[in-house]
Amino acid sequence: MAEVLSESKKYLYEQVANKIQQHIEQGILQAGKRLPSVRKLSQQQQVSLSTAFQAYFHLENKGLIESRPRSGFYVRTFSHKLLPEPERSNPALLSTHVNVHELVAKVFDSTRNQHCVPLAMAAPAPELLPLEKLNKALLKATRRDAAESMRYDFPPGYEPLRRQIVRRALEWGGALTMEETITTCGCQEALNLCLRAVAQPGDTIAIESPTYFGILLAIENLGMKALEIITHPRDGICLDTLENALQTQPIKACLIVSNFSNPLGSCMPDAHKQRLVRMLATREIPLIEDDIYGDLYFGTHRPTNAKAYDQQGLVLLCSSFSKTLAPGYRVGWVAAGRYTEQIKRLKYMTSTATSSPPQMAIAEFVENGGYDRHLRHLRAAFSRQVQLTAEAVAKYFPAGTKLTRPLGGCFQWVEMPESVDSLRLHQLALQKQISIAPGPIFSAEAKYRNCIRIGCGHPWSDRIERAVQVLGELAGKE
Amino acid sequence: MAEVLSESKKYLYEQVANKIQQHIEQGILQAGKRLPSVRKLSQQQQVSLSTAFQAYFHLENKGLIESRPRSGFYVRTFSHKLLPEPERSNPALLSTHVNVHELVAKVFDSTRNQHCVPLAMAAPAPELLPLEKLNKALLKATRRDAAESMRYDFPPGYEPLRRQIVRRALEWGGALTMEETITTCGCQEALNLCLRAVAQPGDTIAIESPTYFGILLAIENLGMKALEIITHPRDGICLDTLENALQTQPIKACLIVSNFSNPLGSCMPDAHKQRLVRMLATREIPLIEDDIYGDLYFGTHRPTNAKAYDQQGLVLLCSSFSKTLAPGYRVGWVAAGRYTEQIKRLKYMTSTATSSPPQMAIAEFVENGGYDRHLRHLRAAFSRQVQLTAEAVAKYFPAGTKLTRPLGGCFQWVEMPESVDSLRLHQLALQKQISIAPGPIFSAEAKYRNCIRIGCGHPWSDRIERAVQVLGELAGKE
Repeated sequence: MAEVLSESKKYLYEQVANKIQQHIEQGILQAGKRLPSVRKLSQQQQVSLSTAFQAYFHLENKGLIESRPRSGFYVRTFSHKLLPEPERSNPALLSTHVNVHELVAKVFDSTRNQHCVPLAMAAPAPELLPLEKLNKALLKATRRDAAESMRYDFPPGYEPLRRQIVRRALEWGGALTMEETITTCGCQEALNLCLRAVAQPGDTIAIESPTYFGILLAIENLGMKALEIITHPRDGICLDTLENALQTQPIKACLIVSNFSNPLGSCMPDAHKQRLVRMLATREIPLIEDDIYGDLYFGTHRPTNAKAYDQQGLVLLCSSFSKTLAPGYRVGWVAAGRYTEQIKRLKYMTSTATSSPPQMAIAEFVENGGYDRHLRHLRAAFSRQVQLTAEAVAKYFPAGTKLTRPLGGCFQWVEMPESVDSLRLHQLALQKQISIAPGPIFSAEAKYRNCIRIGCGHPWSDRIERAVQVLGELAGKE
Repeated sequence: MAEVLSESKKYLYEQVANKIQQHIEQGILQAGKRLPSVRKLSQQQQVSLSTAFQAYFHLENKGLIESRPRSGFYVRTFSHKLLPEPERSNPALLSTHVNVHELVAKVFDSTRNQHCVPLAMAAPAPELLPLEKLNKALLKATRRDAAESMRYDFPPGYEPLRRQIVRRALEWGGALTMEETITTCGCQEALNLCLRAVAQPGDTIAIESPTYFGILLAIENLGMKALEIITHPRDGICLDTLENALQTQPIKACLIVSNFSNPLGSCMPDAHKQRLVRMLATREIPLIEDDIYGDLYFGTHRPTNAKAYDQQGLVLLCSSFSKTLAPGYRVGWVAAGRYTEQIKRLKYMTSTATSSPPQMAIAEFVENGGYDRHLRHLRAAFSRQVQLTAEAVAKYFPAGTKLTRPLGGCFQWVEMPESVDSLRLHQLALQKQISIAPGPIFSAEAKYRNCIRIGCGHPWSDRIERAVQVLGELAGKE
């Protein structure tokens, strides 16, 4: 009963908040204007004081209103100043052995044990995750099938979860089959297994530039070589450059983040995805597609992925629940096409099985509809947080700074003036208890020295705004 | 309150059962004698009918008494016939590339989806595991630290669990440090990481013969070579042979299961462990020690391990909770000595982190004493099950069969007459809904064609006895 009450309350305050939001968006409540007091709002809307307060609190979290001490709530003033976008990247187009692990370790080791403002992270903050509901799903599933939760769940993995993954993908055109879908210990294991299935040590893998450092680590881990391809901050990997490289270099596979790529936030248009798949298929070259951010779109539709255009089983689609639901659960998956048997075997030889209880919890949560509900909230929160971060960067960073405009995900790529050294900035920021991800960890060529990735996974707050301000001031002094 | 009652009931029936067990062991109740009826027992002991019945049921599960339809309970008659032990093994002593994955897959794929009598498994049956209590620990830990359960738990892993691992090891002389102890996705990941930390593709790893197929799979997975060393079914790897091999072959590392080795059940005497560590240390050769069965001793003391004699940080001790508590949780660990930094880095590159909720559940369960209580029961059950299996093998298998006498663990190694082909026996047994692990999966040289490993992880039952009988009869016809 307590649960039902709290659910219905939540519904109420959201209703109230939505009305106010509409008024703001329609200009009825203008920027800078004072909002009714909590008491007045409660009378107007015939809700309790607590519900009225929650409504304001909700809108404040969304960045739409702000509270001023001893004065009440005000509609926020947006700067609307947009920074220019970075140009497409310009890597050397030479395949190279990767050696970023020390730099990555240095960057992240220093941030983990400190109480930093966590702008280095590209994952949702715990307060944006449905901790209690997922815990309930965990409890329900492991109680119902206690013996199952104890058993080895050999590859391909927990069948009810695989069914939910396939079902959800069908809804937006990502045509996976149960047979090819294999659960893994997070997306990082999936990427490692895929690389091993399609290439050998010494082989060259074509990737975006900049790209997610975890991809670089996997390539390094396996003794393969990376070939960074020109990448556009909106459209992703440059297909002309890739096509050219395919003709001149011994590329064994291609590994890209197709939607809201980490760190650029680029999203390949459908036509690009289709062309990429065709281009690789004619050469029988496999594509490892990391779609870990695909569900975090800010628009009205989920972008599709390259896998949807795959006729020949050459696309290995990887993803996980780490960026949307439960980073610590380590539940990822791969739909491996013609490489299914190899992936199953490699998975078994590498880690035997994926942990059962986390898979069971997620399957339960997805099946009962909780996951899609949660995603709606998370997308709204990320969209707002990215917007507010962009405004703050525009406000505080030195002239000449460029900024990506991602349409999904939870991070932005900041290109600062050439004079700024992001590794130095990382050190200076650490001293001020702020963590950032410096550009060079996103490149096998140690490029992007004047760039940083800023995570937007945490609800906007004064603390975060101050951190962006401090960063901007530090960068301005360089 | 219900919980307390059921706890106290449990205590009562165990008390009653223990009294009867003492009478059996002291010969007061002799083999074949009829026990008092359940009603009479309840009067004698002043306990409820249900408690009296539970006491008999408990003793029946332990294999001490048997129920005869419409007649009551009887003290079991033991055959006491012991089969001779196998001789020490005799491998070719040539390093070889490993290729067992297809055979292993064939053997286990065929058994997974069938309702087989699971004699192929070397893990505890779910009914021997504390499902409810571990679930409670899972719930308690993830409720208390909900945000923690969602966060990436980067290497070295969940600190409270690592503390419990180190604390428990200290109790029996296994001196680990917190710094070197790293949690992993089960022992299989730990073994893979260790091999990668100490050797390269093409390098030779000295192993026992026969050895656990998971070790062979890890070596195969990484493109390394295996050198099988003569192994004694009681004392484990032959150190004279190993020393000789070290002088003549380019052995890069040694990987052994020191206690209750899989599949032989051998346990290295302390002096052997000490000599092994010294022998390898003088050559600066690392030892990967898999001690996954060490807690499952039948005697009064836990055997120590080689790591306890390690002065130079050359021993990488691996283990997990998969054979004792929760196979499906996939929580293993390694205490990596001087290889700690490498293992942490490799772990991060391979799978980022170990799943948080299972680690938290196990830490909670170990810390509150549940794990040690559970182990006491499990050891008693395994000891009994191994004994009863041995009796059944003695009774039903063809003349000339030899059998190991493990002092811990949950499996036995059966050496049948030369004429018996265990791969064929595996096929025939499958048709009778019985799964076994045929000898050749335990050897890179495809040896042990006339051997099988019989798992004893399931409570003894008529169904299992019949399965052993059918196996013996099938073997007798070969």
